[in-house]
Amino acid sequence: MEAGRIILDLFLVLAAAKLAGEAFQRLRQPAVLGEILAGVALGPYLLGWLHATEFLTALAQVGVIFLLFTVGLHTRLSEVMRVGRTAIGVGVLGAVAPFVLGWGIMAAFGRATPESVFVAVAMMATSVGITARVLSDLGALDREASRVIIGAAVIDDIVGLLALAVLSGFAEGGLSYVSVAITAAEAVGFVVFVVLVGRRAADHVCMVAQKMWTRNPDFIAPVIICLGLSVLAEHIGLAAIVGAFLAGMVFAESARCVRLEQAVEPLYDLFVPVFFVMIGVQVAPGMAGGGVLALAGAITAAAIVSKLVACRLAAWRLASLEAWIVGVGMTPRGEVGLIVAAIGLGRGIIGGDTYGVVVLMSLLTTLMAPALLRRMIPAQPPGPPSEAPPP
Amino acid sequence: MEAGRIILDLFLVLAAAKLAGEAFQRLRQPAVLGEILAGVALGPYLLGWLHATEFLTALAQVGVIFLLFTVGLHTRLSEVMRVGRTAIGVGVLGAVAPFVLGWGIMAAFGRATPESVFVAVAMMATSVGITARVLSDLGALDREASRVIIGAAVIDDIVGLLALAVLSGFAEGGLSYVSVAITAAEAVGFVVFVVLVGRRAADHVCMVAQKMWTRNPDFIAPVIICLGLSVLAEHIGLAAIVGAFLAGMVFAESARCVRLEQAVEPLYDLFVPVFFVMIGVQVAPGMAGGGVLALAGAITAAAIVSKLVACRLAAWRLASLEAWIVGVGMTPRGEVGLIVAAIGLGRGIIGGDTYGVVVLMSLLTTLMAPALLRRMIPAQPPGPPSEAPPP
Repeated sequence: MEAGRIILDLFLVLAAAKLAGEAFQRLRQPAVLGEILAGVALGPYLLGWLHATEFLTALAQVGVIFLLFTVGLHTRLSEVMRVGRTAIGVGVLGAVAPFVLGWGIMAAFGRATPESVFVAVAMMATSVGITARVLSDLGALDREASRVIIGAAVIDDIVGLLALAVLSGFAEGGLSYVSVAITAAEAVGFVVFVVLVGRRAADHVCMVAQKMWTRNPDFIAPVIICLGLSVLAEHIGLAAIVGAFLAGMVFAESARCVRLEQAVEPLYDLFVPVFFVMIGVQVAPGMAGGGVLALAGAITAAAIVSKLVACRLAAWRLASLEAWIVGVGMTPRGEVGLIVAAIGLGRGIIGGDTYGVVVLMSLLTTLMAPALLRRMIPAQPPGPPSEAPPP
Repeated sequence: MEAGRIILDLFLVLAAAKLAGEAFQRLRQPAVLGEILAGVALGPYLLGWLHATEFLTALAQVGVIFLLFTVGLHTRLSEVMRVGRTAIGVGVLGAVAPFVLGWGIMAAFGRATPESVFVAVAMMATSVGITARVLSDLGALDREASRVIIGAAVIDDIVGLLALAVLSGFAEGGLSYVSVAITAAEAVGFVVFVVLVGRRAADHVCMVAQKMWTRNPDFIAPVIICLGLSVLAEHIGLAAIVGAFLAGMVFAESARCVRLEQAVEPLYDLFVPVFFVMIGVQVAPGMAGGGVLALAGAITAAAIVSKLVACRLAAWRLASLEAWIVGVGMTPRGEVGLIVAAIGLGRGIIGGDTYGVVVLMSLLTTLMAPALLRRMIPAQPPGPPSEAPPP
């Protein structure tokens, strides 16, 4: 029966994601790695328990909307402004350098321009979630380097999302520089408009919501607006997640929807893992082709070196150790890169093999950074797990 | 693009559900009515904005699992035991009478036995959610009649779910009385086993969860177990929602997963309306056939009279007014009846026209009760909405 299969699929995805995530956290690795690998294990090329059904891929789309909404909710424009020039320099240079080097390597391997650009954009953005989690695990969130990393990671997320927005127009309108310019203008215009109007609008929405009879209106209304802005962003040629991220950022600025962050947590906990497990489920065919291993190695090395060196240099104002911590802390790629790759795969612009390259790059950069950071940052005395669990 | 359509569908369902729900609540009607009618309005036979896509019908299945899990979470076996003989009498007699009368009327209209039994079972259970909401709106939750109603509604929910469990085997195994007896035994055995083992197991799960590093484990673990029990219930021939209800009831007994109820709220708020909107989306064809209007009228009248009289009589220990309040308060049908009808439709046992009959019966009984109760129970002074919103 269809209904039984749906609940069984959801059960398998969540149980596997949470068990693998728990195991990886106890190995001091990010839970997201465990979720992706759980998907690979349960996917069609190993156990064969999970397939990319219409329901699960759709639910993964919903999950990624909630993920970017949550990232936005933790992104306060005012704080981004405050961390100042160093974070902006690290964020922008750390996004541009991997893009340039990545495009160059793809071209050197003889790949077509649209495919090369997609991979290059997937290399731009540091994973805010993974970086913040690792720094918090190490008890290092109040270090100077940590503040720069968080600020810069937010900035290169925005740069990466803007690049994705441009890319979406690029992918649909072909190679015309005029259409790229128009999409870029649309993207910037949409972002600026939402940011300018957003805060006041969010305040107003939350005030109206407080007068509603519906249960939990100050959670329901923002979520519906998040979905609406996602649809709007998609409609004008941007990526849906750009709208979700902006919706989150706008409601982060408003202090009136007080229970929003807390109420979104269960949605994050249940639906974001679906996205990462489905990445694993879809990755198997791409990684089977041994011919792309050289490309995967080159792209991963480029992703590490370009981010590390660019961010180290851009953080020249800090002491040397801090500047290197910034460089290493910025290397993990995650959400945004994987989303870019998934969109490229969905539109047929990048093939399964190239998709595997991007996923491998994300996995390896994410695996490497925590190990290195633990050597660079003096360890906190490790308490028993139950007393000092990660946040 | 597929991804855009998914988010657009979800946006439409939620926006319509919440706007209609808000409007109905302000008209002092249950929000659930608004949600169903919103589905009818947006469905293929009126506006045509929503269709029963694979994603939306699957999400509705997830929603109904969360609904029954929540109903279970609000059902404490210990409290059901305490309200005593009156509630048990009202619950059981109030479930049996509509079943008998409903089957009789279906047979009188010449319908086949499997179809007749499905409709009769759909007439059994009072909607706990709607009844509790209405009594709370009237500020009458501490009345003697209210306590009996809530206890009895819980009992007839259990009776209705047990009947559905038997019915599921009945539908699959044909008409053999042996297989019905086996399914009934299985159903009772499953329920008794889960209830007996459940409380201690739930305590244990919550204790283990507290030692996990994963975020919000005392919410994640029960939800995954709810999905697992749903799959198990379906696997042994019961309905998936029976497992979800039992999982909720078991965790309601354990005091160790302290934040569970609160964390499940956002899931309820977002996904339960999808189920009711999709009921509306799927109802249009059935109600188009004018030939079933006589049947719809007879079934609705039978649903009202049988429940009203049986519950009034079973509550003979109370004062006359209280006993009549119990009778009227028990009439609204909702979740369980609609779920039974949806399962019957999905398995091809009842047709679209009969499905429409059940939905109409649910709508009319749900519309009638609040209006009558407001005349029987002295009104509280109506405060401004923002100060006294419904819970």
